[in-house]
Amino acid sequence: MHETGLNKTTIAILGAGLIGCSWAALFMHHGAKVRLWDPDAEARATARARMNRPLQHLADLNGQPATGQLQICSDLAQALEAADLVQENAPESVPVKHALFAQIEAMAPAHSIFASSSSALTWSDLAPGMAQPHRLITAHPYNPPHLVPLVEIYGPDAGLVARACAVYAQAGRVPVVMKKDATGHIANRLAAALWREAVHIVAEGIADVGAVDEALKHGPGLRWSVLGAHMAYHLGGGAGGMAGYLAHLGPSQERRWASLGTPSLTPETQAALIAGIEEAAAGRSIGELEQARDRALIAALKARQSASGS
Amino acid sequence: MHETGLNKTTIAILGAGLIGCSWAALFMHHGAKVRLWDPDAEARATARARMNRPLQHLADLNGQPATGQLQICSDLAQALEAADLVQENAPESVPVKHALFAQIEAMAPAHSIFASSSSALTWSDLAPGMAQPHRLITAHPYNPPHLVPLVEIYGPDAGLVARACAVYAQAGRVPVVMKKDATGHIANRLAAALWREAVHIVAEGIADVGAVDEALKHGPGLRWSVLGAHMAYHLGGGAGGMAGYLAHLGPSQERRWASLGTPSLTPETQAALIAGIEEAAAGRSIGELEQARDRALIAALKARQSASGS
Repeated sequence: MHETGLNKTTIAILGAGLIGCSWAALFMHHGAKVRLWDPDAEARATARARMNRPLQHLADLNGQPATGQLQICSDLAQALEAADLVQENAPESVPVKHALFAQIEAMAPAHSIFASSSSALTWSDLAPGMAQPHRLITAHPYNPPHLVPLVEIYGPDAGLVARACAVYAQAGRVPVVMKKDATGHIANRLAAALWREAVHIVAEGIADVGAVDEALKHGPGLRWSVLGAHMAYHLGGGAGGMAGYLAHLGPSQERRWASLGTPSLTPETQAALIAGIEEAAAGRSIGELEQARDRALIAALKARQSASGS
Repeated sequence: MHETGLNKTTIAILGAGLIGCSWAALFMHHGAKVRLWDPDAEARATARARMNRPLQHLADLNGQPATGQLQICSDLAQALEAADLVQENAPESVPVKHALFAQIEAMAPAHSIFASSSSALTWSDLAPGMAQPHRLITAHPYNPPHLVPLVEIYGPDAGLVARACAVYAQAGRVPVVMKKDATGHIANRLAAALWREAVHIVAEGIADVGAVDEALKHGPGLRWSVLGAHMAYHLGGGAGGMAGYLAHLGPSQERRWASLGTPSLTPETQAALIAGIEEAAAGRSIGELEQARDRALIAALKARQSASGS
């Protein structure tokens, strides 16, 4: 199960916030030489503490401790030296990221892959001004990155994308390659579409916040954790599969689409969401809720390991 | 873990198709006296065979065989005799269901709960014409019903809804109560909203069918199996929770909603979906895909049992 294929790989993690520290723990767990850089002294000083929980999660999940190395760097040039992959986690600001990639291009080795974790920005936002834009990819993780396997990848150079996918796969990730750049990549577009309807259901008084979340977790969420949405309709079409589904139920699906909500986040709707989530949280703090999420994710990931026979 | 609380409960299952047989297996596994009725002799003759796989799944999942009883009935009155809960699974036709509920009302004991599994129809579609509409609820399972725990419930009589919830909970289900009737209940509204965007992503050439499904399974689907969509935004707001999220990122979420797709199932889009799913299926038949789904669901459900310490 445990991959040691990264023990000859050097990875520069730029930005030591939650996402950067999660990436650092993940690559370190899987054997890489990790160089973690942050321009802020306080962030550097507290980075190891932020990595403790992800490292413990990964040890629990895979039954062994981290096998890689960590160096925390105050100097960007030192972090980039010998980097096979540069994973950028700077604030979501175009000028900040443009300035950082200009430095990366000037300092990194000629073979380095430049990967941005950006959620809000796209490749097309980040590439302008770069001398070698073909070396840039977006590689968006899904929070928390050390547990959720998805990494959504877009880049114009197929060979470089393939090299990046191999690195992420060796860190136990599931890289998914996009053919075109899109705001929100794939997963956050799907999540925004679903949440829009979830907000509509609350705003219309059809069900409470907690009821919507329970329905999702114990219904489609559970099923989507093992079966994609397209494949679900393929199986929903009986012996005719997707073609049968589209022929018989396509028109009713289009009518359902037309009936979906287009809510606005009005003050009333915001108040309903906030009151509803307070009720669902039932006094549990954000930290307690995150810990419960992570324990449940680890159990679900262990189930996948056992189901796949590894 | 295993509930035996249904050993004094009699449940009439009307309709011995896939959904009816899945319900029958579920209630029988959990100790109930199940009476399974179908007007069609062929459906009755083959019902036990359709129950074999669900019964085996439940035995695998819970580590013991079914403890209830099964009687297959050709006579509706016999099936309804002593029924505490009547679970209707007739074809999705208003006249067919109206005619059936008229018979049920005439024959069932005075305390019976009348539950419809209808996916496409709502309580408001089914109740007109009934003498005692307050005895009717919709209780929509999510396919496959013996594995996916969600049952979405709507009915106007809170006391009766509570009694129904207790029965479903004793069969290991997670009943979720709606405050208002809505076409598609909760889960299929969420699923339709997500699939619309999944179709848009394929139609626009952003990613292939298989890539969209992989992103969902290994990203938001996995996370939604342990954390609802509303709660995910609560945790996405940092220390400020949902209120902080809405204050800081609400406007960007509304912009993302405005950028989501509104595809039509044109011939070109249908062709892309069919070609994409064929590629993703990679030669596996519908039956093989269903078996893989069910094995993965059982593993995921076992992980939930172990995570909850039961």
